[in-house]
Amino acid sequence: MTADKPSKTPTAHRIATSVLNPVGQSGDLEEFFQWFQEFGSRVYTDVETIGLDELSGWYTDAETGNIRHQSGKFFTVEGLEVHVADSYFGQWSQPIIRQPEIGILGTVVREIDGVLHFLMQAKVEPGNPHGLQLSPTVQATRSNYTGVHRGRSVPYVEYFRDATDRHVLVDVRQSEQGSWFYQKRNRNMVVEVTEDIEVLDGFRWLTLGQIHQLLAMDDVVNMDSRTVLACMPFTGPGLADRFTGRDVDRVGDGFAGALLRSCSTDARARHTMDENLSWITEARVRHQVTSRRIHLPEVKGWHRDSEKISHERGLYFDVIGVRVTANGREVTGWDQPMIRPRGTGIIAFLVKNIDGVLHALVHARVEAGYFDVVELGPTVQCTPENYVGMPSAAAPRFLHEVLRSGGGRRVRYQTTLSEEGGRFFYALNRYQIIETELDVAPDDPDYRWMTVHQLTELAKHSHYLNIQARSLVACLHSLFASAAEEAA
Amino acid sequence: MTADKPSKTPTAHRIATSVLNPVGQSGDLEEFFQWFQEFGSRVYTDVETIGLDELSGWYTDAETGNIRHQSGKFFTVEGLEVHVADSYFGQWSQPIIRQPEIGILGTVVREIDGVLHFLMQAKVEPGNPHGLQLSPTVQATRSNYTGVHRGRSVPYVEYFRDATDRHVLVDVRQSEQGSWFYQKRNRNMVVEVTEDIEVLDGFRWLTLGQIHQLLAMDDVVNMDSRTVLACMPFTGPGLADRFTGRDVDRVGDGFAGALLRSCSTDARARHTMDENLSWITEARVRHQVTSRRIHLPEVKGWHRDSEKISHERGLYFDVIGVRVTANGREVTGWDQPMIRPRGTGIIAFLVKNIDGVLHALVHARVEAGYFDVVELGPTVQCTPENYVGMPSAAAPRFLHEVLRSGGGRRVRYQTTLSEEGGRFFYALNRYQIIETELDVAPDDPDYRWMTVHQLTELAKHSHYLNIQARSLVACLHSLFASAAEEAA
Repeated sequence: MTADKPSKTPTAHRIATSVLNPVGQSGDLEEFFQWFQEFGSRVYTDVETIGLDELSGWYTDAETGNIRHQSGKFFTVEGLEVHVADSYFGQWSQPIIRQPEIGILGTVVREIDGVLHFLMQAKVEPGNPHGLQLSPTVQATRSNYTGVHRGRSVPYVEYFRDATDRHVLVDVRQSEQGSWFYQKRNRNMVVEVTEDIEVLDGFRWLTLGQIHQLLAMDDVVNMDSRTVLACMPFTGPGLADRFTGRDVDRVGDGFAGALLRSCSTDARARHTMDENLSWITEARVRHQVTSRRIHLPEVKGWHRDSEKISHERGLYFDVIGVRVTANGREVTGWDQPMIRPRGTGIIAFLVKNIDGVLHALVHARVEAGYFDVVELGPTVQCTPENYVGMPSAAAPRFLHEVLRSGGGRRVRYQTTLSEEGGRFFYALNRYQIIETELDVAPDDPDYRWMTVHQLTELAKHSHYLNIQARSLVACLHSLFASAAEEAA
Repeated sequence: MTADKPSKTPTAHRIATSVLNPVGQSGDLEEFFQWFQEFGSRVYTDVETIGLDELSGWYTDAETGNIRHQSGKFFTVEGLEVHVADSYFGQWSQPIIRQPEIGILGTVVREIDGVLHFLMQAKVEPGNPHGLQLSPTVQATRSNYTGVHRGRSVPYVEYFRDATDRHVLVDVRQSEQGSWFYQKRNRNMVVEVTEDIEVLDGFRWLTLGQIHQLLAMDDVVNMDSRTVLACMPFTGPGLADRFTGRDVDRVGDGFAGALLRSCSTDARARHTMDENLSWITEARVRHQVTSRRIHLPEVKGWHRDSEKISHERGLYFDVIGVRVTANGREVTGWDQPMIRPRGTGIIAFLVKNIDGVLHALVHARVEAGYFDVVELGPTVQCTPENYVGMPSAAAPRFLHEVLRSGGGRRVRYQTTLSEEGGRFFYALNRYQIIETELDVAPDDPDYRWMTVHQLTELAKHSHYLNIQARSLVACLHSLFASAAEEAA
């Protein structure tokens, strides 16, 4: 297939134009929600939790005790034994999902009337607490799009399976939850089309301005959309000019100006990118993490009965079974195991205006399922309930600053969002961006201030930013439009 | 320890100055070789090959059949079972070295009389065919520098173990031979000092100009030096100007001008970096490689006797034992297993002047021991003997172009160098850079033209360039001085 040449305007400027457009080709948000609700009334799932032993199509392997699908595809629930030298938690074992296939999270974009539009999908997943969410154009495991699911073929997947001759804006494998997945990665893609393409039922063109408005609402934009958006080449020289029509140094000293400058330039970052890469290398060498796959029944401190697998103190998560009856999805019903977290988590960036440039405080974080020892996570990422009654050494740093109120601390973003509803049942987290007056030493081995531009550069490569940090980067981007308005 | 601020001149320019200085603070190459030979007459090893069953301090584990050291440290010789979907070799098993510790390959640099000098070490390793080689300041496994070796402490290692407050020019974990090592990585570092430091016996300050001259000689600069040099931030805007005193567009259309432009700019590369990253992602998703650690006796097609482990058709490599008697090294003698390759290999970049910019043809290459499926290797990396009598589908692409002579093909670099002498016995490869008139399609899934600047940018991150490609990048750098002279 041949296509017209895409626009020659720099990508970051085209992104800015889309961010500043709150009304897309298909109308405003009111029209969006009419469409969304109408679709949801036709396409919905009934989900009931059932016992693990009742799951149809799944079985407990007689030899290993792991939970597997009869096709040998999809995923398995196994055990992982973890040893982290010199850490509070030292050594533990846990159930974990292993899904070695690399799926596609892909969004088609097209310039319509001079504005980039994203082809988004209204999608329902069994773990969604509130039904429909907004997902990328394609969200498919390899089993999905190669037909193991015995469902209909995945619409639009051909734009990602053969992107030759197209303008590819994003194409990078990124990790997912390292506490629940063993080395899971998906291929995050954004591919531009220049020709007319049919908009199927359940799909809609939206501008970034619209998606950002939706990202301010609880539980609308799903995790897969957030990670794909976070990998977009949002930042670049001259971006603040483009957003505001003013020079980057003249957009004010406040939060808005600091955010715009954080996207525009690397020059005034607290650390250079080379210094950041060295800091990451140091963290990856310092932490000695050994993860060993074990059989599910060998996991210690967890209890399995016919219903579910739970931690002996009721912490962390359960492995449960669900039965899905779907209308309008690729098959009409199925059973599957899911992870159901205990409690609502907190996922927060502390941010700070340092010499006029906004920096976010990232954490060099170890999770058992990471592919490469350490990824950069949010300042705080935890479920506070898990630390009740534990010694203070166990509690995450900066949790107190995130939970307290007042005193020079300003909440710039706060929305409850859920994690991937295909594997996680009611996995809700409160995402927050909080401006702080706290600081950390420049040579702190575990925490470091980075600009939005630096985070965006890191997101071009695999295994640097964890899935929670990427979600927060998308949330940071969603603050651009109001910052541009304030600073203009 | 506090140090003076390092120079504010851009690093790439300081590198250029060092490259253009063929005489260092310690004199010219003649004086170097006097020193090198005098040291070699005092510090040398006697190495004899012995049977695997005779190795003192090593044993064959009764349970697994793997070969291990009594301390549990250093490395083990194990088995690996590999499955590569849709490839000629499909499935195989082989012996492999597992050494999970991350060692340090570190070079101290210092500006002396305005010129960057590298503190290099004359070092003898048991696998070196010709005795002494030039190594980085520090070349140490974790067992080395934490004392398991029961030898003297590793000199200068403190500059790398705590580089806080120093100017760190290179700090990245890089992979080593994926056919012989299971997921081996070392931390490549270059750290600048600004104060006087004592130069111990066996160490010497050299300029890059001097190291590059030595790199043109057979088997002087060792593998660890080459990988560290390859990671140096050699390229950047304005580099051609700095080298020649002329604008990048005025340095001529020939090989020399094309090489200098290849280091100076990304603007006229055949593909953008974003396109290259997408191409790498595609290759890493397309190749489905499954590697599984197995016990050494489970390896099929290999034979172990009391002497060694060999492939049943005499191909690839042997695992042998050696007994080392050393004078002037950290301990006075030891035994160890080593890999002894069969035949001399060929490691070659085809290079091409594309629109005035030199490009090297990289290969998206699968090796069993890679950490992340695919790394970029040389155009050709093989031991031709292994393909004798095999169908042509088995032979590497472009091998014919590398082996033939004449016809628009010009050898720009050719030197026989050896791989790491601490694990590999007489592992010699002919390294070549050959200018070609051949081309590949822009959408070739396996081979792609990249500029020197792009290769250098990729070397800032782990797992993109394999060890052989990094050696060749160092060899490409060694052609700068004569290119600058020609183009000036």
